[in-house]
Amino acid sequence: MPRDPNCIFCKIVAGEIPTQKVFETDCGLAFLDIGPLADGHLLWIPKEHYETLHEMAGERVGSLCAPLPQLGEAVKNVTAAAGYNVLQNNGRVAGQVVNHVHFHIIPRAEGDGLGYRWPAREYAQGRAEELTERLRSALGST
Amino acid sequence: MPRDPNCIFCKIVAGEIPTQKVFETDCGLAFLDIGPLADGHLLWIPKEHYETLHEMAGERVGSLCAPLPQLGEAVKNVTAAAGYNVLQNNGRVAGQVVNHVHFHIIPRAEGDGLGYRWPAREYAQGRAEELTERLRSALGST
Repeated sequence: MPRDPNCIFCKIVAGEIPTQKVFETDCGLAFLDIGPLADGHLLWIPKEHYETLHEMAGERVGSLCAPLPQLGEAVKNVTAAAGYNVLQNNGRVAGQVVNHVHFHIIPRAEGDGLGYRWPAREYAQGRAEELTERLRSALGST
Repeated sequence: MPRDPNCIFCKIVAGEIPTQKVFETDCGLAFLDIGPLADGHLLWIPKEHYETLHEMAGERVGSLCAPLPQLGEAVKNVTAAAGYNVLQNNGRVAGQVVNHVHFHIIPRAEGDGLGYRWPAREYAQGRAEELTERLRSALGST
């Protein structure tokens, strides 16, 4: 199993660092974030070490993500949250602090002050079409 | 196939509203967000109508999520992004605007001003243990 001996999440998986584990499967482990944005803020990680999502095989990400509805519902019910965000950051610039893939499950309440900064804008003429073409090509879409 | 006749994403899936489609599988469709936070900001949705993630069966979420690494890598490469966020909002309070499950894939660059508001805090004595116990119980963990 891929492992980074210096990775704090790999140490949690190996039981070398104590944590509040709430759920696990063959491939994933859920535990409380120790610096929570809200009560019940969970982290859901692959037991294997991958730095970013795009380093993982699709099938593996599929297996990892299958329990997300169950985790979301449990967090929502236990914390009596009105909703929740699932957030997964790739790269330091994206807010990733621990270089081991993790999904945040963040319970949300009215007026909690959390959320994504959302300065939506519009595409200039022709730009959306150009990006679509390049993305379709990168993804092998026909 | 579950469909809501008033849902804008269901209309996109049915081809009744034009969009910039970049990728699709049997169960999912990717297209450009028309109010992007950054060039190449993608939405990845199930073709079937579900309002929130926890309404979906785990296996279906697994199938839906399997292409996420491929989509993330394409967005990163095409936009020359330094990283990206995968964000999925459940409930109005969590920032969900269209009531059809969708994953945002948001390319990130240094100094772009985007990101999650992140006022991390600490658990009071005993609170983490209490929440862990309740979450374990809700999830049937032994």
